[in-house]
Amino acid sequence: MGKIKVSMIDVTLKPATRREAEARGRIKLRKETLRLVKTGRVEKGDPLAVARFAGIMAAKKTSQLIPLCHPLPLDHVEVEVGIVGEEVVEVSTKVRADAKTGVEMEALTGTTIALLTVWDMVKMYEKDSEGQYPETEILQIRVERKVKKPL
Amino acid sequence: MGKIKVSMIDVTLKPATRREAEARGRIKLRKETLRLVKTGRVEKGDPLAVARFAGIMAAKKTSQLIPLCHPLPLDHVEVEVGIVGEEVVEVSTKVRADAKTGVEMEALTGTTIALLTVWDMVKMYEKDSEGQYPETEILQIRVERKVKKPL
Amino acid sequence: MGKIKVSMIDVTLKPATRREAEARGRIKLRKETLRLVKTGRVEKGDPLAVARFAGIMAAKKTSQLIPLCHPLPLDHVEVEVGIVGEEVVEVSTKVRADAKTGVEMEALTGTTIALLTVWDMVKMYEKDSEGQYPETEILQIRVERKVKKPL
Amino acid sequence: MGKIKVSMIDVTLKPATRREAEARGRIKLRKETLRLVKTGRVEKGDPLAVARFAGIMAAKKTSQLIPLCHPLPLDHVEVEVGIVGEEVVEVSTKVRADAKTGVEMEALTGTTIALLTVWDMVKMYEKDSEGQYPETEILQIRVERKVKKPL
Amino acid sequence: MGKIKVSMIDVTLKPATRREAEARGRIKLRKETLRLVKTGRVEKGDPLAVARFAGIMAAKKTSQLIPLCHPLPLDHVEVEVGIVGEEVVEVSTKVRADAKTGVEMEALTGTTIALLTVWDMVKMYEKDSEGQYPETEILQIRVERKVKKPL
Amino acid sequence: MGKIKVSMIDVTLKPATRREAEARGRIKLRKETLRLVKTGRVEKGDPLAVARFAGIMAAKKTSQLIPLCHPLPLDHVEVEVGIVGEEVVEVSTKVRADAKTGVEMEALTGTTIALLTVWDMVKMYEKDSEGQYPETEILQIRVERKVKKPL
Repeated sequence: MGKIKVSMIDVTLKPATRREAEARGRIKLRKETLRLVKTGRVEKGDPLAVARFAGIMAAKKTSQLIPLCHPLPLDHVEVEVGIVGEEVVEVSTKVRADAKTGVEMEALTGTTIALLTVWDMVKMYEKDSEGQYPETEILQIRVERKVKKPL
Repeated sequence: MGKIKVSMIDVTLKPATRREAEARGRIKLRKETLRLVKTGRVEKGDPLAVARFAGIMAAKKTSQLIPLCHPLPLDHVEVEVGIVGEEVVEVSTKVRADAKTGVEMEALTGTTIALLTVWDMVKMYEKDSEGQYPETEILQIRVERKVKKPL
Repeated sequence: MGKIKVSMIDVTLKPATRREAEARGRIKLRKETLRLVKTGRVEKGDPLAVARFAGIMAAKKTSQLIPLCHPLPLDHVEVEVGIVGEEVVEVSTKVRADAKTGVEMEALTGTTIALLTVWDMVKMYEKDSEGQYPETEILQIRVERKVKKPL
Repeated sequence: MGKIKVSMIDVTLKPATRREAEARGRIKLRKETLRLVKTGRVEKGDPLAVARFAGIMAAKKTSQLIPLCHPLPLDHVEVEVGIVGEEVVEVSTKVRADAKTGVEMEALTGTTIALLTVWDMVKMYEKDSEGQYPETEILQIRVERKVKKPL
Repeated sequence: MGKIKVSMIDVTLKPATRREAEARGRIKLRKETLRLVKTGRVEKGDPLAVARFAGIMAAKKTSQLIPLCHPLPLDHVEVEVGIVGEEVVEVSTKVRADAKTGVEMEALTGTTIALLTVWDMVKMYEKDSEGQYPETEILQIRVERKVKKPL
Repeated sequence: MGKIKVSMIDVTLKPATRREAEARGRIKLRKETLRLVKTGRVEKGDPLAVARFAGIMAAKKTSQLIPLCHPLPLDHVEVEVGIVGEEVVEVSTKVRADAKTGVEMEALTGTTIALLTVWDMVKMYEKDSEGQYPETEILQIRVERKVKKPL
């Protein structure tokens, strides 16, 4: 049994470039729940507002959540949360940094935690009589776009 | 403009009960990538192993990521990561605690961060020639089961 | 030079009781800034909404910020942010827990970080032409009330 | 209900400059308590020493506490804690960084958490017979000075 | 390739008991360095004082550092730092909690981070002319004692 | 009693250089335990695998654990865990960054937390019949090598 190494990819010799990434994702809720969201009647507060801030704060914690992610100073994080149709909330997170590595994991982490926050805010309306969640689902989490430009 | 309150739900008067929750989710990868995973040839290390630990650690951080989640001592966190067919990795997280609130957000957070970790570990094989991710997608994140029993 | 001990107070033998605390504080802003807040024209978003969530999240981190504070599961955190007169924003944080120690540090931490968040959100309107803050001031941070009842 | 964006200000195109900020604040204690501090008889340890380190560590956590603050590498954090007259402890925090944004929030966060730490260290001497804090107050938290120089 | 599970040991059915643990460790420094420590001439401040607080704060973070450690509320953490002979600093950390699992990892984490903090505080005196540390060494980290009593 | 300052060393005027450090350390286990490790029969999972990831994640948290450490973006962290003889596990951590200060504390923190993680993973096999650890010991934690090159 020899020594096994694990490592964050070595980016020592890579030049810093201008990095940008956008990630999206969706959560499917009950129509009734979404009506409560639209009319501002969710008891715990506005899920979309809370989700936006949770997403921004989570993007900044990415390297503490994803084991091999490099810690990066970020220049910009923007989280957009909107309603699509009658049963979907969509989150989109854009991240920018001057860095040696890409920032798609930061965009994905922001998007994902924002979606989980929406779920947490409307939990009580999504549960059925037995406390289960037959309809709630997070889906379509994707990286929309990655950009890399010289500084 | 009056005062507006926001709060974590007040659980002061609720009795602690035995709580359990299981959440699942999937990530769709390229078939070629999954072959590398199966044969242990992913350069950054075994994505499934790393994902499991990232999931457990993330479940413990839930109340620091989801703004209105109560901080809870957890009795048990278990993350299972497996391959389903030719292009899917599935994660399942089980959490148990004696607590006044449910633990489904902990199970969801563990599952989600484990899935993001898989993505991070195989990033280099999922990108196309322009650095985009045309095929990678996280999907079907659901709460499988919630249980609440008297202590 | 002998050994010196430092310790978190030993509460091993204290019984858990129902704890509650409320802390308040104020930030003095320029009248013009407060008009922007009242009319929803702050570019970075609604400072009062962001402050509320920052306060709740900070209350949960108290034991990681104040060196000798005991880590506690919290049953309830509520942050209220309101406008008082023409140049003051007031924050009030209530915290409840079944615990062996009081929760006033949690209430104070929530209040304080909420006030700093208000400052951060309106920074650009508070600076004078030389980038200084001649008028902005945080003040009157106090514990309003502490309660301790048997479980 | 359209999409609403929230974002950390985009500083991508701003050049890094040498940033410096100093923030101050005070805590008013009972005269008796301050005598105990001056004579080294506080049971939990020296409040001024603990406050200094708590302030430095908190300054480094600023971007995890204030939702829209940019994460920054800091070149220098210095916390000074002193006694003013018979009932006041004053904290001053200086922060320096080569960064695209100012560091006043870091200086304010260091100052504030240092002041809360003083409170926590002398809690037992500030409470009256009913467990309340009639005299303790944090006040006059201000940014003394901000400097921005080319690199 | 089947599913592999990893988990924090399930302690759901274990009763909470009174737990206590003490861990010790040592750091070997140059005699000259220790003379500076003893006479209060270390430029960065008193290494023993800083180490004590770093140890207490680290003990509270144990479950975020050690992947399979259960998060626990702690009733007591005490860190003692002393000088032994002419070239050794010894750290001892005691932890107490009412919990379903032992607290030796918390005691070990407190001890270890306290020792690293001593190293960091005297770094500049321990380096040789080539910037290396030929003499500095952390050693003898052990669990002195574990106790488990009924509540 | 005058004002006392404490500070992170001011590195404002130092140029960034290419920094590298390697730290090593060992944990002595019972021969029987090590046989279980070698043959993959440790119930909690592979201690060496978990230790590697815990080490990498801890290295990224160094500035939040060691009070006067500067927060740094890291370019590379690599943790190697191997078995030496019949009763020793050795950990070696390499860290690289372009920074104004050295990265030996990051390498030491990664090594130390990796060693503690090994301990945690094999706890149940190291305890004697009275729940004590008569043989387990962490030792020989050293900085092997520090390098500093112009960018």
